[in-house]
Parts: sequence; C-alpha cells; structure tokens
Amino acid sequence: MDETAMPLKCLAGVKVLDLTQFEAGPTSTEALAWLGAEVVKVENPKGGEPGRTAFVGPKGSPDSYYFFEFNANKKSVTINLKSERGLALVKEMARRADVMVENMAPGTIERIGLGYDVIRAINPGIIYCQIKGFGEGSPYEKNLAFDMIAQACGGTMSITGEPDGPPCKPGPSLGDTGTGMLMAISILGALYERKSTGQGRRLQVAMQDAMLHYIRIAFQQQAVTGHAATRAGSRSVTGSPPPAGIFQCAPGGPNDWIYVFARQLDHWHNLLRAIGHEELIGDPRYETIEARRERREEVEAMVADFTRCHDKHTAMRLIGAAGVPAGAVLDTMELMTEPSFERRGILQTMQHPSGPFKMPSWPVRFDGAPPKLEPAPLLGQHSAEVFGDWLGMSAGDIEALKKEGAI
Amino acid sequence: MDETAMPLKCLAGVKVLDLTQFEAGPTSTEALAWLGAEVVKVENPKGGEPGRTAFVGPKGSPDSYYFFEFNANKKSVTINLKSERGLALVKEMARRADVMVENMAPGTIERIGLGYDVIRAINPGIIYCQIKGFGEGSPYEKNLAFDMIAQACGGTMSITGEPDGPPCKPGPSLGDTGTGMLMAISILGALYERKSTGQGRRLQVAMQDAMLHYIRIAFQQQAVTGHAATRAGSRSVTGSPPPAGIFQCAPGGPNDWIYVFARQLDHWHNLLRAIGHEELIGDPRYETIEARRERREEVEAMVADFTRCHDKHTAMRLIGAAGVPAGAVLDTMELMTEPSFERRGILQTMQHPSGPFKMPSWPVRFDGAPPKLEPAPLLGQHSAEVFGDWLGMSAGDIEALKKEGAI
Repeated sequence: MDETAMPLKCLAGVKVLDLTQFEAGPTSTEALAWLGAEVVKVENPKGGEPGRTAFVGPKGSPDSYYFFEFNANKKSVTINLKSERGLALVKEMARRADVMVENMAPGTIERIGLGYDVIRAINPGIIYCQIKGFGEGSPYEKNLAFDMIAQACGGTMSITGEPDGPPCKPGPSLGDTGTGMLMAISILGALYERKSTGQGRRLQVAMQDAMLHYIRIAFQQQAVTGHAATRAGSRSVTGSPPPAGIFQCAPGGPNDWIYVFARQLDHWHNLLRAIGHEELIGDPRYETIEARRERREEVEAMVADFTRCHDKHTAMRLIGAAGVPAGAVLDTMELMTEPSFERRGILQTMQHPSGPFKMPSWPVRFDGAPPKLEPAPLLGQHSAEVFGDWLGMSAGDIEALKKEGAI
Repeated sequence: MDETAMPLKCLAGVKVLDLTQFEAGPTSTEALAWLGAEVVKVENPKGGEPGRTAFVGPKGSPDSYYFFEFNANKKSVTINLKSERGLALVKEMARRADVMVENMAPGTIERIGLGYDVIRAINPGIIYCQIKGFGEGSPYEKNLAFDMIAQACGGTMSITGEPDGPPCKPGPSLGDTGTGMLMAISILGALYERKSTGQGRRLQVAMQDAMLHYIRIAFQQQAVTGHAATRAGSRSVTGSPPPAGIFQCAPGGPNDWIYVFARQLDHWHNLLRAIGHEELIGDPRYETIEARRERREEVEAMVADFTRCHDKHTAMRLIGAAGVPAGAVLDTMELMTEPSFERRGILQTMQHPSGPFKMPSWPVRFDGAPPKLEPAPLLGQHSAEVFGDWLGMSAGDIEALKKEGAI
C-alpha cells in the first residue's frame, strides 16, 4: 500500500462514456479517472479494445502492460455494438453520461450509428469528444494515423535527431498522450462551463494539429531565423550557448551522460568552480555568451574532461549542487528502481489480478499526495455494476442481454 | 480576422494570479486563458518576466516571439515584489483569486513571502500551484532545472536518438509544455471540485516526474523485455514490425522523408497495391509479422524503392489514400505555410502592437472552432484595469503606487 497516494474525488459524480482505444483516447479519459470521474469503457465482448491484446502482458494475463498503463482507475462493460440491442444500450448510457469520448478511425463512429447528431439528439447536454489523426478540413482528414504518423506530419520529427542525420522520432508518444492531454483539458473546461450552463459541447482534436502546440519553441526559432527549425542533437532547437548539451560520464555506457546547461553568467562561474577551473572566473575569453560561443569546442572540452572522470550520478551531485542546471540521462530501469519515486507516489503499484505492476501514476500532488492508483479493469468487470447503477437493470435483465449476445 | 475561431467563455469569471515565467508555468496558465479564464501575469516593472527578453522578437519590440507564444490571451500588471506595498498588493490579489500559479526556482516564492502557508491563510479557497524541476523529497529537490534537464532526468532522452548513437533531446519542449499541460488538467479538476465544495487545494508538479507520464510506452516495453527501453531512431520504442519507419523521398533534402507504418495485414496488402507489388499479396514470405521481420531489409527496400521516386507529398497521397498509415515528415516552415491550418484556425495571427504574428493556437475545436487568439499583453498593459476591477482602485490610487515604486 502506498500511503503517499490518496483517492481523489474532484470529479465525483461525473460519468464518462469511454469508447476509446489504444493510447490517444484512453489517456484523455484516464486523466479524468485519476481526478475521480467514473470512466466506463465500452468494449467489444470478443477481446475488448485492441490495446488489451496488441501488446504483451504478464504471463497468463489476457491484458497487456500497455492496457494497464492507459486504463488505470477505469471501469469496463462489454457491449456488442453490432447488435441492435447493444446499440440501444450504449445510447441509453449516452443519455445519462456527462462526457463521451471516441478515437476510432475516420467515419467509424458515424457508421455504427453513434455520430454527434445522433448522440446530441439523445442528450443535448453531453460533451461529445473525438480524437482523430488529421483534422476535419485537412487534406488528409480520411487518412489513418498512429502516434508516429502524427509526429512525422506534426513537425516533431523534423526537429529531433542529430544535425547531420535523418529525422528521428521522439521516444515519448507525444502524438498519443500529448494529444490526449489537450483533449482532457478541453473536456474539463467544458465540464466547468456546463456546471453553470448545462450546455453541451462538441470537442474535436487532431493528433497532427496537437503536435504544433508542443513545438512552439521551434516556431519561435523559425520566426527569429526566417528558416525552418533544424535538428540539434542533444541541444535545444533555440541554439543554446555553450556549454550546453550532454557530456559523457564514466564508465561510458549508452546512457552514461550528463546534461549541463550553463547559460547565465552565474551558472558559468558556478560550473567553473565545480570542475576545478576557478582560475577562469572573470577571464574575458569566456565571460560573455558570444565569447563562449566562439570557443565552444574548448569550453565544452573542459566540461567533458571533468564529467568523464565521474559516474553520472556523482557528476550530477557535484555540478547540480554547485548551482548549475545539470541532469544525468536516466533510463527507464534507473527511473523504475529509484526509491524516491515510489516514496513520493510518482510510481505506484497496481494490484492487478494477474499480479502487481509498478507504473507511473498521475504525477501531480494534491495537498501533498498524488491520486491513488487503482487497477485497470478486466474485460466486462463492471457490467453488472454499471448497468445496474446507470440503467437500473437487474441481474436477470443482464443475464438476458448476455443470452441475446448484446453484451 | 480568422472567422473560424471563437472566443471561449468556459472559465468565465475564474481569476488566475499568474506568477510564472519562461514556459512550464506560462503554458499551464495560457491553457486556462484559452478556455476563458482571466489570467493576470504579475511582472517585475523592470523588464517583466525573463521570457519577454531572453529570446528575440520582432524589430523594435521589447517582447520576444517566445513570450507571444506562451502568453496569448493573458493580461499583465506590474508589481515590485521587493517593495512592501507591492507585496501587500499581490496578497490583496491573492485574496480575490481562484488560482495562483508559480514556477520560480526552489525556495524563491517562500523567500519573497508568498509561500503556501501565507497565501492559504489569506484565502483558504485558493488553488495554489507550483511547478519545479524536481519533486519535494527527491534527492535533487533544490536543483535548478530547465526543459532539457527534465528531459535528461525524466527518461525521454534515453529513448530518443539512433540505436547506436548518443541520447538525443526530443525537439518538443516536453519538459516545459508537457508539464504545463498536466498542471492545467489538475487545476481544472480542482476548480470543478471547488465549484461544489469551495475547497482550496495545493497542487505541485515536478518536471522530472511529469516526463514519466509521457514515456509509459517505454515502461511497458521494459516490462515486456526486462531491460531498459532503448533508442530506436525513427521507429517506436516498442519495436514496430516492418515496414515501419521513415523512407527517403525525392529530392533527398533533410526532411524529404515519409513515415510508413504497415503493421496490420490489411495495411500491408494496401501498401503492396500502392507501390505496385500486387503480385506479392498472399505470398507466404511476407504474410505474417514474423515473416516480414525476418525479411526486414528486403521489405523495407521495396518501400524505399517506391518512395525515392516521389516527393513526400505525392508519396503520402498515394500511400495514405490506399489505406496505409503514412505521413510526410513536415518541417516548421511547411507547417506554417500549409493553408489548411489557417483555414481551420489551428494557426492564427496575433494582432500585436509590434505587428502581426502567425502562431499555433489551442488546437481543440469547441463546436467547430478553436478559441480565438488574443495578443500577449505588453508589460503592465492591464495594471489600471485589473487594479480597478479586482481591488477597486482609482486612477489616483494607481498613480500614487507608481510614484512609490510599488508597481
């Protein structure tokens, strides 16, 4: 039990009808679930949403680690949307929901009969949300997209990679989770408004469009230089003055690097002290950004000579404590096993029927503690509970639906 | 005038006291401003927050493009926090605010006398928000951090770059904007709750911690393989089956590439049709993911032979329209000049006193249109308006404060 985490009830009473899959949609509804909304995934009785099975999970589990991560704190019901009764059922749920979210391929939600006009007629107060790869009115609005397609077409790849190398995909799934976060913010804005006005909203976001929000730093660089922002390796696209970037540490493994960024004069002086070059403090050859830019190689070699003699944790302690922005490059295993994350509730352990699974939780603390992680649901785990609560159905009603093949 | 954009009033009446600077803080409050909150930046009368001047802007403008991007739709007042009267003034504003946000260096807000305990005593219903580089209780809680330090220590760099190369910084400023988005979501959750309960909240997020949220795909990969997630160039950290990745297009410039990701069998068949290899549909040498993995080089050479003969836009049209997830690598200039973004209100033009500036807006559509872009404020532009509205001050009162050096 993680005692630093607390259940959050900020969105108590908010009902979310979740028709999402994979990552972009599920991350948006999961954010609402962390905040205490009742998020109910509606899933195909045959295997559930594709994220359950398109990736690998613990031995014997029908569900993937991928599914665990993006569906924490949610409920699951099964409904066969191809059956008439199933479709009617999901519409009954939409009548009672505050929010509905979907991220199916373009045209699919309309084809199955749950498009905006249909749902709005049933529940004019609903916040109806759609996440697609490309925006309505874009030349590619009918195209399929995954995270990497959004990152290619949304500019993030063009500014990631070595200066003389090909475009590189940022490792973070920004096309998915990044877009999901913008949708979550928009849903919350609409929910706040609705509390006063009762007004419903139609929200739409495209993954390509969302990427522009995350690379505004590159757009400002373009405004300054007049040409497209370029790739800068470990440096910022803004062309940070030296020393800036990663420096190798002992013993030289693939992630034995430290980031050092001594932009301001006080950072530079602090750095000189930390690396044993006090004698250069005040030396005009290095005192201005322009001077250090002219001697980039020399300046960066001084830093590298120091970092190479230390492991990255020691280097970070020595340089960081001296008042220089500096950070060791940490890999996922180092992060997963760093005890402070667990102590602070940033990593929490999901008590899943297939066994415990340690994973990142919602990283914002509310009055000192992040929201408590609850297990991702098994397929259909909450059918009886939700159909009972939302629709007033009895065990007998539910049994009949099962026999009919509707759920 | 962009007629596809509309002013949003979702957060009408919400008052945000904004003590943020640079990007991580400003992006969180800007999200609230897009949604219609009244966001008031409190700035040093001598030059304002550092983001105004640490980067370049249009000729003759005291403010940078950087500042424009992260401070749209906000107001600005000047207050000298080092004067007693100035400090009293900001406390009076805190008494009337619904939300207060800061992202100063560790310990600074407490030192200037605006720490949580002080503000909470003045206004127990306030949502008090802090963004730092490292979390309270982390071994590095006192360290300075910028975007790149968070990306080094938060794992995003370890999974970005070529497989045999050094870690690379993702181009997007995820350490800043990515963190800002998680704070915005949390603020909105707390605001929703407060509408019913009147309850204040203390919210805290660390940029390092926030990075873990965006690389959960890498943590699931680690769970599957048992080792730290690695760098995968243009591929996904999950090790996507071929063909997956970028393929060069004519005429071979630095961003003349197209991403092709034909994971599913129908994608593969559609791709074979698009690239003129219908004869291989059904060929057992390529029909399964395992088979294609074994023949990765051959499979990817087929795709490359096709894409090399087309420019990336043509290749995207041909492959995308065939039902294969595919996307041209677009650079910031190509995005800025693509007319559909402007037509759809995703790019809007800020009518700033220094001249028009086209930039990405909030990319989520509300009932068909994104929120309307309003100019970033000049330093102190709204002092009279806000001190009048919030604190009932007269022009004479404000003049006196100016003389005193308090504002």
